[in-house]
Amino acid sequence: MERRTPEASAVETTHLVLPPDTNAHGTAFGGRIMEWMDITASIAAGRHCRQATVTANVDDLTFERPIRLGDIVVVRARVNFAGKTSMEIGVRVEREERKSGVREHCLTGYFTFVAVGTDGKPVAVPPIEPESEVDKRRFQDALARRQVRLDRRARKVI
Amino acid sequence: MERRTPEASAVETTHLVLPPDTNAHGTAFGGRIMEWMDITASIAAGRHCRQATVTANVDDLTFERPIRLGDIVVVRARVNFAGKTSMEIGVRVEREERKSGVREHCLTGYFTFVAVGTDGKPVAVPPIEPESEVDKRRFQDALARRQVRLDRRARKVI
Amino acid sequence: MERRTPEASAVETTHLVLPPDTNAHGTAFGGRIMEWMDITASIAAGRHCRQATVTANVDDLTFERPIRLGDIVVVRARVNFAGKTSMEIGVRVEREERKSGVREHCLTGYFTFVAVGTDGKPVAVPPIEPESEVDKRRFQDALARRQVRLDRRARKVI
Amino acid sequence: MERRTPEASAVETTHLVLPPDTNAHGTAFGGRIMEWMDITASIAAGRHCRQATVTANVDDLTFERPIRLGDIVVVRARVNFAGKTSMEIGVRVEREERKSGVREHCLTGYFTFVAVGTDGKPVAVPPIEPESEVDKRRFQDALARRQVRLDRRARKVI
Amino acid sequence: MERRTPEASAVETTHLVLPPDTNAHGTAFGGRIMEWMDITASIAAGRHCRQATVTANVDDLTFERPIRLGDIVVVRARVNFAGKTSMEIGVRVEREERKSGVREHCLTGYFTFVAVGTDGKPVAVPPIEPESEVDKRRFQDALARRQVRLDRRARKVI
Amino acid sequence: MERRTPEASAVETTHLVLPPDTNAHGTAFGGRIMEWMDITASIAAGRHCRQATVTANVDDLTFERPIRLGDIVVVRARVNFAGKTSMEIGVRVEREERKSGVREHCLTGYFTFVAVGTDGKPVAVPPIEPESEVDKRRFQDALARRQVRLDRRARKVI
Repeated sequence: MERRTPEASAVETTHLVLPPDTNAHGTAFGGRIMEWMDITASIAAGRHCRQATVTANVDDLTFERPIRLGDIVVVRARVNFAGKTSMEIGVRVEREERKSGVREHCLTGYFTFVAVGTDGKPVAVPPIEPESEVDKRRFQDALARRQVRLDRRARKVI
Repeated sequence: MERRTPEASAVETTHLVLPPDTNAHGTAFGGRIMEWMDITASIAAGRHCRQATVTANVDDLTFERPIRLGDIVVVRARVNFAGKTSMEIGVRVEREERKSGVREHCLTGYFTFVAVGTDGKPVAVPPIEPESEVDKRRFQDALARRQVRLDRRARKVI
Repeated sequence: MERRTPEASAVETTHLVLPPDTNAHGTAFGGRIMEWMDITASIAAGRHCRQATVTANVDDLTFERPIRLGDIVVVRARVNFAGKTSMEIGVRVEREERKSGVREHCLTGYFTFVAVGTDGKPVAVPPIEPESEVDKRRFQDALARRQVRLDRRARKVI
Repeated sequence: MERRTPEASAVETTHLVLPPDTNAHGTAFGGRIMEWMDITASIAAGRHCRQATVTANVDDLTFERPIRLGDIVVVRARVNFAGKTSMEIGVRVEREERKSGVREHCLTGYFTFVAVGTDGKPVAVPPIEPESEVDKRRFQDALARRQVRLDRRARKVI
Repeated sequence: MERRTPEASAVETTHLVLPPDTNAHGTAFGGRIMEWMDITASIAAGRHCRQATVTANVDDLTFERPIRLGDIVVVRARVNFAGKTSMEIGVRVEREERKSGVREHCLTGYFTFVAVGTDGKPVAVPPIEPESEVDKRRFQDALARRQVRLDRRARKVI
Repeated sequence: MERRTPEASAVETTHLVLPPDTNAHGTAFGGRIMEWMDITASIAAGRHCRQATVTANVDDLTFERPIRLGDIVVVRARVNFAGKTSMEIGVRVEREERKSGVREHCLTGYFTFVAVGTDGKPVAVPPIEPESEVDKRRFQDALARRQVRLDRRARKVI
């Protein structure tokens, strides 16, 4: 399989925070933001592997600031790392205040997706080829996070 | 008010075509695509004027090819032209076949939005400053379309 | 195929404008109204041809007045004209203020749908037989609009 | 308050049965049909009294035949009877097979709505004036059903 | 088929009342509550018979008090009675005020579901075995309601 | 403030996996499951503190097995630990195969919510009083996870 760059999988989704996305105090539900992150990550994963994919893992998420009714939410995702059948996707969420145009980073998450065939079994994904310095750093960071996840799972099993 | 460039209002939204977006034959409803175009255009309009906006006009739309269940739909919008209280936003829709990655242009639309104050009355929007050659051509084309719309309305009135 | 009258395809859908249909200022999104128009038109088209249909074209739309949270929206559609495989459907949108009962025309649109077979290829639709004077006038108007659309497409091609 | 006719409150809503409306066997959920009936009835009630309303009672409902994915569902409602602060609305549901155009009655329901003021307390509604023979019969039937409901409630209380 | 207890089919669904569930006065639509009742009942029915099911009948419903924006709504259902191919499911709805924690009964409904095979024809369901005193009373009450429904239907037919 | 038990905040939500919840291969989106977990956790948090709450943190999540179209999904949540203004909620997700009744654990997550006043600032929450042995163990585990989170944050800051 041909190598692909992180850039080739980059995706941006933009959302308006509407009443059904918010609680009674006008703050967006964390779960809705997570849903937007997952769907954006799944598009990036699909662009990398051109297969069906399923969410396998989501790293610890910290919501740094509330997102409000009427905000524009920009979600950006790209594949940082590809293993044999899995990919780590970095997902960055920003809110943009409609009136002032002020943009603030709200949270970043790391999603692992697995490519699956029609029988639901994992299938191979193309290797990734980080090009820019930033992409190379993200690849290394993803490798380190992957090791943490593997260690964590091993500790649970033993 | 400070001039703004078309680039400053550029927005991209990406959508997965899911079952509720399609009819019984797996083809996306035209109305759903139009809804995605309108919301993308409204974000671009809001970025230009930082005011509430309402859709005032949509130019003739031609769906060049069907969009299907499972497709990724990329909608891009930017402000082409700004008048005293209105803006024309160009909206381009592409489908991307998930499996092959093939991308095809599906339709382009021109939406006119008006900025409104809290009383619902039109309010002034910043002037636009096309920078690139492409932006300047789009500005001229938008001016021509605007003249067609004004002529059409005049004919109706008389 | 047996001829059918415009009346035989007439359809009415009625909607309540709820919070998810509106922006932060309580005005219904243009895109939501267009979605309601498209679905109403598609029911009328389906009643005429009893086949699957796809939206092919939407004529220029002008929103004459805002539609608000809590409004009742009545959308009426009927087939004005039928060609070999396509139909023009006229769609009229009115808002009704719940408290006062005041009804106002908001916009009228002309949607062209094409009947398609299971292979997605266009298939023949029944001829239309306008009966009343109003239907006959609408048929003539639709013919004129169709010619404008064909001319426009021809100019683009050349 | 001025008397109003049943005809003045008549409303029709038309729906396409889409995948989210159906279970895994392609049959529309009873709950979705009941939701469409309630919203249609609430528009009729609002047209009669021009006040906010709340659902107070729904008579026994029997689903006579299944409604399927792809069906067109036509829901018609009108006020049959008006008391001091409540109204009985008759709601009739038909399915229409898209391909054949066959229409079948699926169920009829009787909904009682109460008009409420901004404090949530019941407020008076206009009297009803049945005009046609059919309207007069429906008025008598609604009176009989109302007596049944009052008797039933009385038995529960004692 | 093995007998099953009412307890084995017990299900609880919990809902937050969000803006799209309410009318302009912040009161939940009756139709939305009915939809939640039907879906909860259908899960209970499915747990009893492990077949596809369709809603056949809903007994008279009385909304005793309004449910409001921001309320937590708890819906509980369990099979009271099983016939040859049908089941009666009791459904109880409570609202819980988020701030005070006050819980109030809002309404109780009795839904009849029929198990259906892949051809849509009724299929046999397991017998029910009420264990507790409460379950036995509910079984007897369900039998009585069933007789009322059969009588009612017989009167209509003759 | 009066102490509250974990049991007092326990909540159960049950969901049917419908077409809009799934991708083209009939597997539920991870993001939809996360949304259901977040809303269930937010109800538990609200029951403990009777205040508005916002999602602050979600611990690492691992999806152990896919959830499929037609599955019944049971989500259970309860407050494990309460700090000064924050609470950790444990959320357990199980799928239930409709036909066989087989139940499988799919994932467990730990959500941290913060209680907020009308000004959006954190406000105090009641202390928690674990009663059963299981509750006491969960409290200790939550304390340990909290320390990990605080350490992680400290490392990031330095």
